[in-house]
Amino acid sequence: MRNVAVIGVGMTKFGELWDYSLRQIFTMAAIEALEDAGCSNRDIEAFYVGNMSAGLFIGQEHLGALLADNAGLKNIPAMRVEGACASGGLALREAYLTIKAGEYDLVMVGGIEKMSDSPCTEDVTTTLGAAADQEWETFVGLTFPGAYALIAKAHMERYGTTKEQLAMVAVKNHKNGKNNPKAQFRREITIEQVLASGIVADPLSLLDCSPISDGGAAVILASEDMAKKFSDTPVWILGSGQASDTLALHDREDLTSLKATRLAAEKAYTAANMGPKDVNFAEVHDCFTIAEIVATEDLGFFHPGGGGKAVEEGLTEVDGKIPINPSGGLKAKGHPVGATGVAQVVSVVEQLRGEAHKRQVNRAETALTHNVGGSGATAVVHIFSR
Amino acid sequence: MRNVAVIGVGMTKFGELWDYSLRQIFTMAAIEALEDAGCSNRDIEAFYVGNMSAGLFIGQEHLGALLADNAGLKNIPAMRVEGACASGGLALREAYLTIKAGEYDLVMVGGIEKMSDSPCTEDVTTTLGAAADQEWETFVGLTFPGAYALIAKAHMERYGTTKEQLAMVAVKNHKNGKNNPKAQFRREITIEQVLASGIVADPLSLLDCSPISDGGAAVILASEDMAKKFSDTPVWILGSGQASDTLALHDREDLTSLKATRLAAEKAYTAANMGPKDVNFAEVHDCFTIAEIVATEDLGFFHPGGGGKAVEEGLTEVDGKIPINPSGGLKAKGHPVGATGVAQVVSVVEQLRGEAHKRQVNRAETALTHNVGGSGATAVVHIFSR
Repeated sequence: MRNVAVIGVGMTKFGELWDYSLRQIFTMAAIEALEDAGCSNRDIEAFYVGNMSAGLFIGQEHLGALLADNAGLKNIPAMRVEGACASGGLALREAYLTIKAGEYDLVMVGGIEKMSDSPCTEDVTTTLGAAADQEWETFVGLTFPGAYALIAKAHMERYGTTKEQLAMVAVKNHKNGKNNPKAQFRREITIEQVLASGIVADPLSLLDCSPISDGGAAVILASEDMAKKFSDTPVWILGSGQASDTLALHDREDLTSLKATRLAAEKAYTAANMGPKDVNFAEVHDCFTIAEIVATEDLGFFHPGGGGKAVEEGLTEVDGKIPINPSGGLKAKGHPVGATGVAQVVSVVEQLRGEAHKRQVNRAETALTHNVGGSGATAVVHIFSR
Repeated sequence: MRNVAVIGVGMTKFGELWDYSLRQIFTMAAIEALEDAGCSNRDIEAFYVGNMSAGLFIGQEHLGALLADNAGLKNIPAMRVEGACASGGLALREAYLTIKAGEYDLVMVGGIEKMSDSPCTEDVTTTLGAAADQEWETFVGLTFPGAYALIAKAHMERYGTTKEQLAMVAVKNHKNGKNNPKAQFRREITIEQVLASGIVADPLSLLDCSPISDGGAAVILASEDMAKKFSDTPVWILGSGQASDTLALHDREDLTSLKATRLAAEKAYTAANMGPKDVNFAEVHDCFTIAEIVATEDLGFFHPGGGGKAVEEGLTEVDGKIPINPSGGLKAKGHPVGATGVAQVVSVVEQLRGEAHKRQVNRAETALTHNVGGSGATAVVHIFSR
């Protein structure tokens, strides 16, 4: 099978981008990725874009063809893929597989969401609820913070994870975000501030939650031949894994772990012929602080129940044993839901190229991205090396 | 590269399915496809589902994981793909490419839409408008029938296509639908009735338009080894092609032809090493009567401007030179938008197996499906043989 590399990356600043429409935001990211790859819009053979809910947010479906056209990718195969907040990671995986299939040599992968300034939804929380089970959860009042609060409660009950440990995830990710010029939040916060912030869904406070964001990201994938033609610093995709689980939490075997993450990681590790110990750093899906702790356990970096203690001991800091979310993560970088999985790849590529400046991790040879949809019904994991 | 076959098909009756929810509708189609393939839910390795707008219709995104779970496809990679009304065809193409890539051997492809009984939209036309360009078309009042009316006007002006010829498409497809037990409309209509039906968007009358439908379809794709293991009547996918165009009509080079269809067909014909003359019959995207006429020209069955005359001469009847939409097409079979591209495959497989009963075409060795998103911004074409 053919090898596949990332040869170009681009992303907009994440945040409340009131001055730009969805198509404008994506086009900025796409142009940056094309310039970074040193290739022309006319070289791109196909386009995959991850987006969760432009239909509900701005009344626009059919983003594949729309954004391809706006980015100057005329007449090529273009499609949107969706798996709630994992949409970006799924788009990456589809592009990767179609290059492996020999169908294309050069593909653009996009991720986009415009969540503020939405004329079509009364509130963003309702739209995000469309990622949960409408009949069994959303309709009867469960919100997304509520779903993760249940996970947090179960984790605290079983393993003794503390609210302070959750807060430490937010503190670390804000510290990292301060050094990321494209992050939505670029200020440090304290444990006390997290604990004192208003309760959203007990035990999660406002500063345990990732923000509502606008943003776009794009990466260019290439077959081995094309990668060598266009790039001196290709970043290789060594493995890709995806899995699913029930949308509704009540159908899960366990609330303290996401089975879809464990299965997706197992596939990605097997494909890459690696284990968790071989990964130098990771961008994981910290939509809530508890989600990062659970992810670091499910990905095998720490034993079940060990994620809280690991944060407390500083193991996940930029200079720790296994840096987690050196970009600031969803918590501080921002979480335009469909864009997140692609933005994680942008962050990983910057690190593996040694271009992450103040947030650069010491050892950056192999990296992992972990993108989750809903409260864990979709998970997709990729492993990269320079 | 590995060969890929369709080994099982299933679909619900199309129509107003007031007694069933989206997930129930899809599960019925999935079970029928599994039974038809003779394989178990546990044999399926991945799931792709085409859906245009469950978010706007029923407030539910994240259909990949949701429907996989409901169909008993536990924990496997599951994702939704979207390209407006071409979503089903795109799902088929992704499954096909990932089997070619060697990633999977047995994949379920689904298509689903629940358009009636929608608690979330004021009217279906608004939601369907999300397939057009929100900023340049829908927002300023263009509806979908309006977009195709512009195409019809241009075609009539340039080629002399008549309202009677448009009506003949509807009459033929209703005649075919009468013989399809799963069609929404199973009654014949006359040219006079079509011409006398109320104008929706001049020159398109009510009976020139496909209906609003609920429905689901599912097919099982297999690698060559698995196809031979499970099936005595595999239907091979010989070629797949996809292309895109601008969403907004005003940016197109020409209104009388869909460039995306021409490009997608060219790719599919090249891959299959065939031309239009080698195709025995086709299921094409007749969301409006004019769309079938334009499609038969763009697919190369008739010369540009010859589609109207061809219908008039009976060339596209079930016993004609090149039967078009022997299933009844979108017009009579129904058009649950995300399901259509997969339902076309169900119809083609029934014909190629010789199991189409009263609607069986005489020569059924090779067939083509043509699925369009929006007013032509996405097109996907597949070629099949028994």
